Amino acid sequence: MTGGLVTFGETMALFTPPTVGRLRHAGSLMLGIGGAESNVAIGVARLGLPAAWFGRVGADELGETVLTRIRGEGVDVDAAVRDSEVPTSLMIKERPQPGIARVTYYRQDGPGARLRPSDVDESVLRGAQILHLTGITPALSDSACETVRASVELARTLGVLVSLDVNYRAALWPAERATPVLRELVRHCDVLFAGDDEAELLGVTGAPEVQARRLAGLGPREVVIKLGARGAVGWVDGAPVAVDALPVEAIDAVGAGDAFVAGYLAELMSGEPVTERLATAAACGACAVSVPGDWEGFPHRDELSLLTSRHGTVIR
Amino acid sequence: MTGGLVTFGETMALFTPPTVGRLRHAGSLMLGIGGAESNVAIGVARLGLPAAWFGRVGADELGETVLTRIRGEGVDVDAAVRDSEVPTSLMIKERPQPGIARVTYYRQDGPGARLRPSDVDESVLRGAQILHLTGITPALSDSACETVRASVELARTLGVLVSLDVNYRAALWPAERATPVLRELVRHCDVLFAGDDEAELLGVTGAPEVQARRLAGLGPREVVIKLGARGAVGWVDGAPVAVDALPVEAIDAVGAGDAFVAGYLAELMSGEPVTERLATAAACGACAVSVPGDWEGFPHRDELSLLTSRHGTVIR
Amino acid sequence: MTGGLVTFGETMALFTPPTVGRLRHAGSLMLGIGGAESNVAIGVARLGLPAAWFGRVGADELGETVLTRIRGEGVDVDAAVRDSEVPTSLMIKERPQPGIARVTYYRQDGPGARLRPSDVDESVLRGAQILHLTGITPALSDSACETVRASVELARTLGVLVSLDVNYRAALWPAERATPVLRELVRHCDVLFAGDDEAELLGVTGAPEVQARRLAGLGPREVVIKLGARGAVGWVDGAPVAVDALPVEAIDAVGAGDAFVAGYLAELMSGEPVTERLATAAACGACAVSVPGDWEGFPHRDELSLLTSRHGTVIR
Amino acid sequence: MTGGLVTFGETMALFTPPTVGRLRHAGSLMLGIGGAESNVAIGVARLGLPAAWFGRVGADELGETVLTRIRGEGVDVDAAVRDSEVPTSLMIKERPQPGIARVTYYRQDGPGARLRPSDVDESVLRGAQILHLTGITPALSDSACETVRASVELARTLGVLVSLDVNYRAALWPAERATPVLRELVRHCDVLFAGDDEAELLGVTGAPEVQARRLAGLGPREVVIKLGARGAVGWVDGAPVAVDALPVEAIDAVGAGDAFVAGYLAELMSGEPVTERLATAAACGACAVSVPGDWEGFPHRDELSLLTSRHGTVIR
Amino acid sequence: MTGGLVTFGETMALFTPPTVGRLRHAGSLMLGIGGAESNVAIGVARLGLPAAWFGRVGADELGETVLTRIRGEGVDVDAAVRDSEVPTSLMIKERPQPGIARVTYYRQDGPGARLRPSDVDESVLRGAQILHLTGITPALSDSACETVRASVELARTLGVLVSLDVNYRAALWPAERATPVLRELVRHCDVLFAGDDEAELLGVTGAPEVQARRLAGLGPREVVIKLGARGAVGWVDGAPVAVDALPVEAIDAVGAGDAFVAGYLAELMSGEPVTERLATAAACGACAVSVPGDWEGFPHRDELSLLTSRHGTVIR
Amino acid sequence: MTGGLVTFGETMALFTPPTVGRLRHAGSLMLGIGGAESNVAIGVARLGLPAAWFGRVGADELGETVLTRIRGEGVDVDAAVRDSEVPTSLMIKERPQPGIARVTYYRQDGPGARLRPSDVDESVLRGAQILHLTGITPALSDSACETVRASVELARTLGVLVSLDVNYRAALWPAERATPVLRELVRHCDVLFAGDDEAELLGVTGAPEVQARRLAGLGPREVVIKLGARGAVGWVDGAPVAVDALPVEAIDAVGAGDAFVAGYLAELMSGEPVTERLATAAACGACAVSVPGDWEGFPHRDELSLLTSRHGTVIR
Repeated sequence: MTGGLVTFGETMALFTPPTVGRLRHAGSLMLGIGGAESNVAIGVARLGLPAAWFGRVGADELGETVLTRIRGEGVDVDAAVRDSEVPTSLMIKERPQPGIARVTYYRQDGPGARLRPSDVDESVLRGAQILHLTGITPALSDSACETVRASVELARTLGVLVSLDVNYRAALWPAERATPVLRELVRHCDVLFAGDDEAELLGVTGAPEVQARRLAGLGPREVVIKLGARGAVGWVDGAPVAVDALPVEAIDAVGAGDAFVAGYLAELMSGEPVTERLATAAACGACAVSVPGDWEGFPHRDELSLLTSRHGTVIR
Repeated sequence: MTGGLVTFGETMALFTPPTVGRLRHAGSLMLGIGGAESNVAIGVARLGLPAAWFGRVGADELGETVLTRIRGEGVDVDAAVRDSEVPTSLMIKERPQPGIARVTYYRQDGPGARLRPSDVDESVLRGAQILHLTGITPALSDSACETVRASVELARTLGVLVSLDVNYRAALWPAERATPVLRELVRHCDVLFAGDDEAELLGVTGAPEVQARRLAGLGPREVVIKLGARGAVGWVDGAPVAVDALPVEAIDAVGAGDAFVAGYLAELMSGEPVTERLATAAACGACAVSVPGDWEGFPHRDELSLLTSRHGTVIR
Repeated sequence: MTGGLVTFGETMALFTPPTVGRLRHAGSLMLGIGGAESNVAIGVARLGLPAAWFGRVGADELGETVLTRIRGEGVDVDAAVRDSEVPTSLMIKERPQPGIARVTYYRQDGPGARLRPSDVDESVLRGAQILHLTGITPALSDSACETVRASVELARTLGVLVSLDVNYRAALWPAERATPVLRELVRHCDVLFAGDDEAELLGVTGAPEVQARRLAGLGPREVVIKLGARGAVGWVDGAPVAVDALPVEAIDAVGAGDAFVAGYLAELMSGEPVTERLATAAACGACAVSVPGDWEGFPHRDELSLLTSRHGTVIR
Repeated sequence: MTGGLVTFGETMALFTPPTVGRLRHAGSLMLGIGGAESNVAIGVARLGLPAAWFGRVGADELGETVLTRIRGEGVDVDAAVRDSEVPTSLMIKERPQPGIARVTYYRQDGPGARLRPSDVDESVLRGAQILHLTGITPALSDSACETVRASVELARTLGVLVSLDVNYRAALWPAERATPVLRELVRHCDVLFAGDDEAELLGVTGAPEVQARRLAGLGPREVVIKLGARGAVGWVDGAPVAVDALPVEAIDAVGAGDAFVAGYLAELMSGEPVTERLATAAACGACAVSVPGDWEGFPHRDELSLLTSRHGTVIR
Repeated sequence: MTGGLVTFGETMALFTPPTVGRLRHAGSLMLGIGGAESNVAIGVARLGLPAAWFGRVGADELGETVLTRIRGEGVDVDAAVRDSEVPTSLMIKERPQPGIARVTYYRQDGPGARLRPSDVDESVLRGAQILHLTGITPALSDSACETVRASVELARTLGVLVSLDVNYRAALWPAERATPVLRELVRHCDVLFAGDDEAELLGVTGAPEVQARRLAGLGPREVVIKLGARGAVGWVDGAPVAVDALPVEAIDAVGAGDAFVAGYLAELMSGEPVTERLATAAACGACAVSVPGDWEGFPHRDELSLLTSRHGTVIR
Repeated sequence: MTGGLVTFGETMALFTPPTVGRLRHAGSLMLGIGGAESNVAIGVARLGLPAAWFGRVGADELGETVLTRIRGEGVDVDAAVRDSEVPTSLMIKERPQPGIARVTYYRQDGPGARLRPSDVDESVLRGAQILHLTGITPALSDSACETVRASVELARTLGVLVSLDVNYRAALWPAERATPVLRELVRHCDVLFAGDDEAELLGVTGAPEVQARRLAGLGPREVVIKLGARGAVGWVDGAPVAVDALPVEAIDAVGAGDAFVAGYLAELMSGEPVTERLATAAACGACAVSVPGDWEGFPHRDELSLLTSRHGTVIR
């Protein structure tokens, strides 16, 4: 790929009941897909930049569902692997009460856990601007973890920037196992995204602004602490930065963090200054939470101006 | 339980797209449940006899879906276990082309595989007439297999008849692993149901009538070879028996074998002669295939006469 | 039944259009069930206590729908009667404008009106802790009214506590006919639930706290005045009590009163003090209004702590 | 009305589950309407002739559904009465097995039973060509029966032809009560439609051709015996007539008889000869059974030629 | 028509995705109809006054959908023309974000653009009280514009009041083309409805109250400036008038203006004073925005009092 | 593109009611896409060969729907143009009676008609194996026709084979206008697909086998006459060829011809002999008709063997 973002991880089929309430009373579930990394790739593609995603899916209809939908969004999936040994992973996202989302995963020993270093196609990475990773993939299995490490090494060799969203998932691995792995990754990445709780997991305390600076001390040149409805703060190129969240009503908060990352990285690849990166990131997050679906509401570039003209963006 | 049938195994949530075609083009899936053993229990309950089912489900909404629906049909599920370690197993049943069904399972290391001998509640079994087992459960895990063995032993001690439907599932275990286990079970059961291909798997060749007689030689007093649209033949109490299938159009063949077993066992528990057992079994199978769903079409007793009066039942 | 709650009345099929708006523009209606008494029984069962419901349904598919769904929730329906003379009663619940519910009933001369004293199965009542009644049943017909009276008498003989929710339905009988019947019932019950308007119908005026005390003067040891979003006040064992409602958004208020009653009675049966009874009652009401459906949102016991930890419960 | 057909009776809301199977397993039902008389009026209107229907509906949303849909089809409903005393009648049409329809009615003491002679608006009848009646209306109540009698008398006074479709409904009244009433009506009608079983109910035996001739002997100038898939035979203006049914696959047979009647009467009003009346009647019946719904498949005039050119019509 | 309102224009099929979000992610669209003029006619008919609508639709199923639904609401459509040259126009109404509606039209060179003066049936207009027009129709084509002009002339000849809702649609014609045409129409109408932005388009500046008076100076006896959630002001019979909007939550604002016009004109035809006209207009607007659909929420007369008793109406 | 097929034309949004019956009675329609050329491209991509499609869509959500779904299937759409002047074309596909499909188009002056020679991107065509065209595109407008001609010329210059499917659409242009244009195209193509009626339109009479030979005389090296359920015959490289259709039940025949063409061309590009081309073409056609949707049932390569092993393929 020439320019653009490369990412990999596990993307799953996503079943969602159509209304709020107990799943047991639902007659049907809607079929979608979702994965933190492919969400970011879709977000980047919608903003007009090249994006490629790879990973493993089962050699079955849910696997084709995953690939068809990601590819449909203009993301290159040619390096994805169909693994005929296991079925495609899936998740069920319920909303038992208004405002509460509960996700159940069927991914144990699934295709994502079978990722291996040889799945990383050097030809995909060569010429890319950014390799984006999340802290989910190393939690899936030893070989997936090894794949992440190998990809970082390859990226550095090829001169590709490394971006990491910490995305700590307690259900996949305990803190004591996650912390050393994630800290090691932080040390080798250029751009880092974390929540303030995740910063603490990485051993960094203090106000979010302080956390950002301290994390930058570990290695990354750009650190952004995502604070949800409270916006974001960061430490970028040796200076503090901050952005407010846009005041929208949150319909479905899942995926908002991925939209934020996509917005930031797309502007980074476009050579925009950090204020612009954060403004776009906040706008993307606002779009994402306003409609149902993990990524379906992510904005196209021409929609950004509409949104920000309605709301304004506050860069402090 | 006083009188009636006890059975156990794994019942799963069942997702089905509403129409024929590729799953990837489906916008939604319907939520149901299914499991060979609970299907039989529901069939028996609809025919008016006591039935109890137990097994493990996850401590989640899909688990409650399984329990709610089985219990709703009048089957006692009080001995079922909610296992908070793993999510409830599920399956996806597609019809990519008319007349073709393809099922994908998410049950690896699921609640069913965590069945253990201590899950068998002696108080449930005591006083029952029949313990019904399938060849699916021993394939799930060593401990599930051990549970089956322990239940057979307990049943024999308590004077409860043991019924076995071979139900060989090649996806769960290879023939070389299944055959010795299943042969051992056959030896200890009183009533045996098998397809002609399953009879071969058990090492018994020849025409179905011959297979039935030879299988009876291994131990069971009653052997019925289920032949689908060709009806069934058997060797019961030392004599050959046969029944034709009713001439109905098959809308959804999944579950027809379970309906057949339920019909047979319900009449056996009612003290009906073998001709009546087979007639009811055939009628139940015909009802089951006529409407969508694994068990939803199973008949109530008062519906049987309507059906057989329309079609007649041919006992040869 | 050993321990637990027994209740009876009429439960109906419930048709609801999927969205707000005129029914005439709806293309389809969802199929559910509902009835004040079975709602309470389901609420009690979800909180982990034994519950039994009986009543009459038609010998038809809607009748099976009613029985299947109640039984699916773990409520014993073995004493219910299938009446082949009349079809199962049904109701249509529209929401023509947001926040307005309009229910049309098809129950005139239906199975509920055909309840008769012989439908009360002494074996069900024997050993129960509570017989729960509503003021709906005596309004259905003379024989239904007689059935209520007979059941109260039997309960008292058997030493079973009698609980009554006034539930006055103006569409079923005029105040002049209802008041004497309901007052008579109040006199013979141990636990009484009423709205403040219903208390007035019973001839008791004043602030709700005063009404509670005055109603207790008529006989019941425990009186609770349900005040919806304003919480509840009562007079229990000779002392005033009160609880606030939890501050949740009401999506569907139908059934909230039944949830409240279920919560109160479940804790009463568990031997909890009145503050705990009211706290659980308020939590159950809050759960019920938060999701669509008359009873579908009622909580399981393990969900109560989640809710109250989020909201806190104010016992004054 | 100048020219055209006037009819009256009870039209009900119609709830239908979307697929074959037990109603209890349906999650939703579709909302439609149906009634033998309004079906005929719709059929006549679609063929381009004036048609008016009246009757009673409840003053509720289902009543508006009935009126909106009939009026939408171009049938004049201005003389219909909204009766605020009772809710609109409804029916549930299930297909528990392929090819089997089961209808449950909620019409006891409903608006239809409250029809009274004063509901017959002389201004609607004056100038009409045909008053069409069915044997359902007199079965609803004494006052409905009286209304039918009064309308016949008025029609004869005004010189309006009287058409009667026997439509015997055993669930509404027993043969011994129905026969004398229906025979009396037959005596006063000009055009009579009956099934061969209904002809027997009227006391007329023999082959259908013989029945037709014998019924004509009671009074009607035109008698048609509807034989479903076997076509129809009749005795019209003193001579035998017959038509074959068109060879179409029956998806939903309900309403086919009404379509047949509509086709026959529309051509009669247009002055077409009997062969044309029967050909159109048969074509209308064929259209009706080919799509789901009681009347939704009835043809417009320009669709008739398409159909008959595909199939041909055999007039013997 | 004797008394009542006559209107004409283009009514289209209306496709709407069931939820908020990008249309591309919708699996299905709901089928409805809509058109500013038929909306007004439906509103008038629901308030109990005679109403007729005509216009052109294609000779196809969408055309029948349009006619069936308008006629179903009790509006006379006998003068409508089925034009077999072009398909019925349609529109797609998306809600990409909560509170944002986006409509795409497929009406270029459609039936509406083919309206011609000869489509105006003098017999429909004769005896009517009001001819209602919108500024949409003259924008459709030269011949549609000519039809509007011809109808105004005919109305004045027949002594029928002319009502005009400016309804400027920028997508159909630019301001420089629209302004002279609309100003000319304003000069010949008796009752005028406009937004404040539309008043400016007509060349009239100032506060809305001033605009109303100035527009009245151009010819119309009654001028009402619709201000949405801010209510309306006007200049009627030489005096200022005003009404507040009712404080309801807007679910779907499309059609609210048409409901307002229908309410005003219905009361005008009933001879009600201007305060009553405005009160009903405001109540109709409030009903319209409270439920989904362009016209489905318009009130019947007996529903008005319910609404205003809940909210009160403020006539200043 | 290196190797593979390039095609262009107009692809539209496709609205389909979910069941058989009049569209006016449908509550909703499903959203899909379709176009003869993109159908072929999807078919080729599913068989594992590179495929690119281009054309014009509106700059709106239906346009994104078209692009997303084609791209999702692995077809390169990078050369497609978003035209902000007109909305994306759409079509409505009804099934008023079983086995009858009726399509209404909204494409007049749409994006397809605005195709122009400069839309043909030389870089896409360079290196391709086949340029596939249909007789639909030249019918859309003069500039679309000119685009087809220019593309043929460019293809011949670049040494790219030209394939043409006649696809005569009488609704778009009369025979007298179509025939000379299509005959001219036939002269310049290498591979020609036509129905026997289309061959007649091209002025070639006789049995299909004779027509094929005669059409080959006009220029194309390979001519295939598609005969639907009767299979196909052809004249390829100077010799007659034929294939039977596979005996499957046709659920939805639309798109079967495109599947056939895709199968033929995919094998041609793979260097397979003509018998193999025809066998795959027939298998693709059989898959296409077996499930609903214009292209959704097209086979992947690994599904072909399953199908042909079930049915066998008869090459005569």
